[in-house]
Amino acid sequence: MSTEHPTPTETESTGTGAAAAGTRLDPWFGSYSARTRGMKASEIRALFAVANRPEVVSLAGGMPNIADLPMADYADAVADLLRERGTRALQYGSGQGEPELRDQITQVMAMEGINAHPDDVVVTTGSQQALDLVSRIFLDPGDIVVAEAPSYVGALGVFRAYEAEVVHVAMDEHGLVPEELDRVLTSLAEQGRRAKFLYTVPNFHNPGGVTLTLERRPRIIEIARRHGVLILEDNPYGLLGFDGEPLPAMASMAPDDVVYLGSFSKTFAPGYRIGWALAPHAVREKLVLASESAILCPSNAAQLAISTYLSQFDWQAQVKEYRRMYAERRDAMIGALTEYLPSCTWTVPDGGFYVWVRLPEGLDAREMLPRAVTALVAYVPGTAFYADGSGSEYLRLSYCYPTPSRIVEGVRRLAGVVNAEAELVGLFGTGRPSGGSADVGARAEGPGPATV
Amino acid sequence: MSTEHPTPTETESTGTGAAAAGTRLDPWFGSYSARTRGMKASEIRALFAVANRPEVVSLAGGMPNIADLPMADYADAVADLLRERGTRALQYGSGQGEPELRDQITQVMAMEGINAHPDDVVVTTGSQQALDLVSRIFLDPGDIVVAEAPSYVGALGVFRAYEAEVVHVAMDEHGLVPEELDRVLTSLAEQGRRAKFLYTVPNFHNPGGVTLTLERRPRIIEIARRHGVLILEDNPYGLLGFDGEPLPAMASMAPDDVVYLGSFSKTFAPGYRIGWALAPHAVREKLVLASESAILCPSNAAQLAISTYLSQFDWQAQVKEYRRMYAERRDAMIGALTEYLPSCTWTVPDGGFYVWVRLPEGLDAREMLPRAVTALVAYVPGTAFYADGSGSEYLRLSYCYPTPSRIVEGVRRLAGVVNAEAELVGLFGTGRPSGGSADVGARAEGPGPATV
Repeated sequence: MSTEHPTPTETESTGTGAAAAGTRLDPWFGSYSARTRGMKASEIRALFAVANRPEVVSLAGGMPNIADLPMADYADAVADLLRERGTRALQYGSGQGEPELRDQITQVMAMEGINAHPDDVVVTTGSQQALDLVSRIFLDPGDIVVAEAPSYVGALGVFRAYEAEVVHVAMDEHGLVPEELDRVLTSLAEQGRRAKFLYTVPNFHNPGGVTLTLERRPRIIEIARRHGVLILEDNPYGLLGFDGEPLPAMASMAPDDVVYLGSFSKTFAPGYRIGWALAPHAVREKLVLASESAILCPSNAAQLAISTYLSQFDWQAQVKEYRRMYAERRDAMIGALTEYLPSCTWTVPDGGFYVWVRLPEGLDAREMLPRAVTALVAYVPGTAFYADGSGSEYLRLSYCYPTPSRIVEGVRRLAGVVNAEAELVGLFGTGRPSGGSADVGARAEGPGPATV
Repeated sequence: MSTEHPTPTETESTGTGAAAAGTRLDPWFGSYSARTRGMKASEIRALFAVANRPEVVSLAGGMPNIADLPMADYADAVADLLRERGTRALQYGSGQGEPELRDQITQVMAMEGINAHPDDVVVTTGSQQALDLVSRIFLDPGDIVVAEAPSYVGALGVFRAYEAEVVHVAMDEHGLVPEELDRVLTSLAEQGRRAKFLYTVPNFHNPGGVTLTLERRPRIIEIARRHGVLILEDNPYGLLGFDGEPLPAMASMAPDDVVYLGSFSKTFAPGYRIGWALAPHAVREKLVLASESAILCPSNAAQLAISTYLSQFDWQAQVKEYRRMYAERRDAMIGALTEYLPSCTWTVPDGGFYVWVRLPEGLDAREMLPRAVTALVAYVPGTAFYADGSGSEYLRLSYCYPTPSRIVEGVRRLAGVVNAEAELVGLFGTGRPSGGSADVGARAEGPGPATV
C-alpha cells in the first residue's frame, strides 16, 4: 500500500516541513525525528551475525558465563515465589521498583562503601535503561558529555540518541587522568560551554580494562565539582575484581555529586534486565518520572526473582566463584597474547571482562575484522568506543564467555590474521616494542573535535 | 556536599548556559534538559498513595484481575523452563526479541485479522516502551500528534516527554469521528503543518470506553493516508470484547500505514512487562535500533516465561474467562451508576476496563477528588486525559480490579460525593437529562489550542 502514499518518491527528502516525503523502500522516511536520522545500524552488525556461528571463537561479546549458577535449586525457588506471591509478581508494580529489592540493592552497594537509603534507588530495565534515563533528564541536543577515551559503546550510543556531543578525556593505566579532565573542562569553560556530566566506568573499564586508583577518586570528584559537572559512575563490574577488596565507589565519597549505576547482569545474570540508579534525591525524583513515561514500571516478576536469588542463595560465594573463573580466563588470554601476539600491546585487567589491544602500527582493526571472521575469530574494533570515529589501531577482546582453551585458540587465530596483515602492509618487524605495557588509547596530543 | 557546589542558590535558574545554577534542594537544578523542565509529578499522585489503602474502593487504576490464573501449574512450568533452558532464559538476548515469542505474537494478532511475519515484530518492555520508541523515532520538539479526545494518559505523558504538541480529535459513541479527523488534518495542512502520526485506541477505548466501528476503520485509514499521517494503533484490550468476535485491526487493512501496539498485560498478566510493536519493515528497523539504545534487549526470562504460558496453557480459554469476569464487573458498574448516579451520563463499554462519566453541569472532577478519597472512593479526573488540561467535567471509572460488590459500594460512595457537591453548588435537579447515553467528551465546538 506504500505505493498509494501521498508523496512517494525515490529520492531522499530533508524531512522538514509538512511536505516531507517518503521513499519506495520507506514511505515514512520523511517523518523521522532528527535523532533518528543520525541512527544507523552498526556496520559490523552483519559481521557479528556471522560471528555468532559456533565455529567462530567470539572474543567480541560481553555475555557473562552463567553456566555454573545453581539452576535446579533456583528453578525451585522461583516456582515457590510464583506459588506464594504469584499475583504480586505478575501484577504491575511501582515505577521506582520493589521496596524489598531496593533494600537489598543498598546492601549490595554497601560492599563498595556506599551508605544509601532504598528511597534513593531507582530500579531499571538493565543499567542501560538507567543510562537512557539519565541522558533523557539531562541532555538537550548539542549538550556535552565528557567521557573516557575509549568509552563503553552502549553509552556512546545513548548520548548520540540524545544528540549530545561527547568529548573524550585520556586514560592511562591508573584510569581517567585527573589533569586531563581538568584541562578539558577548563578548555570547555573558556569556550563558554559546560559538560552536563562526566560519564565514567571506574572499575575494570569497558573496553579499557583499567581501574581508577583510589588516590585519584577524590581528585576526580573535586575537579568535577569545581566545574559544576555531575559524575555518572557506571559500575557493572565493581564486584568482579580478581584481587583484594572492591574499591570504594565515588558515590560513597560524594553522594550529592554522583549518579551511580549498578547491575545484576554480571554478578548474577543479565536475563532479567534488572539494573539500578542511585541518585541525589531531586535527581532520583526526575528519574522515576522519566522511567514511568518510558516503561510504566520495571518488571515485578524479574525484580522478585532477583530478590529471591539474593535472599535464598549465597550470592556472594557465587560472585567469588565468578571472580575465580574470570581470572582464569583473563590469564588464558594474557598468556596467549604474550605467546602469539608479541607485535601488539595490551592492558592487563585486574577484574571485569576486557583486554584492550593496540595493533602494530599501520593496521586498522575495522578493516581487518572481515578477515578475522573468515579466520573464525571475532573482536570489536576500537572505533566502536570513540565518538569521533578514531581508535582504529585498537581492538577489544573479551574473555568472559569462551572457555580458556577456546580463548587461546581465538587469540592464536587472531595472531595469524594480524601477522599476515602486518606482513601485507610491509610493517612486520618494524612495530613498536612488544609486551604488556598498558596503553589505553589516551591520545593526549590527538587533534580532532572529541579531544578538545 | 551540595552546599559546596560551585554556584549554589535558592532561586531558580533558567538552566541555559554554562553558569546554570543549582538550588539548595537540588544542586543539579540548572542542568536538566528542556524536556525535564516540563516534567512534573502528577498533582493527583499523592492522593493516589492514599487511595491505595485497602479501605478505599479504587475505581482509578487499570490493574487487571489476575487472581484466577492457574498459578500452581504455571509455577511448575516456569521451573521446568529454568531447569531446561535456564542459561538461555537468564542470558542476554536479541534486541528485537526472542524469535519463538515473536512467532507466537503473530498468532495472537491473527485473531484480529493481521497476517504478519515475525521479522516485523519488536518485543518491548510493555507496550508503554513501544509508545516511547515510536515517539523517539518520529517526534522532534514541536511536532504534532493527533489523538482522540480524551486519550490514554500514559501516551499523553510520552508525547509530552518528547516535547510534541497533541491535537485532540472528537470521538462519539462509534469512536473517532472520521469527518473530525479530516477537518483537523486539513486545518493543520492549511497552517503548513502536518501531524507525525495519529494515536488511536480503537477498541474499548481508554478512557472513553467506546470502540471504533468496522465501517469507520477504512475511512480513518484513507484520511490518514491522504494526509501522509502514520497511524499508531494501540490495542491492549482488543481481545477483551464481551460480545462477538474481535474486530479486524487497522493494521490488518493497511500494514504499511500502521504501527500496531500489543500487550500481554491484559490477556495474561502485566508483571513481566512484555508488549510489542508491529511495524512496516523500515520503521521496525529503527525501532530495534532505538530499543537497543534504550535497554539493549528485552528480558529473555520474561519472554520465555510468556512463551511457555502461550504454548503450554489454554490461554484463549483464559481470555474467555477474563471476558466473562470483566463483563460481570461492567454490569455491576453500569447497574450501580443507573441506580445511584442518575444525574450523570456515561458510556457503556462492550469490552475493556473503563467507563467514562460526565458529571452534572458545574461539577469539577479534579476539585472533587479529595472529597471522594475522604469518602473512601477513588477515580481519575478527566483532565488527566486531555493534553490541554480540559475535561474537568469528566471522570474515568475502572471496573477491572475490584469485585462486583466493591464496585457497587464504590459507585454508591461516589454518588454521595457527587450529590453533596451538586447540592452545594446549587445545581441539583437542574442537570442535563439523566441516563446512559454515550458522551465521550467530543467537544466538537470547543475552543482552545488542542482542538484546532
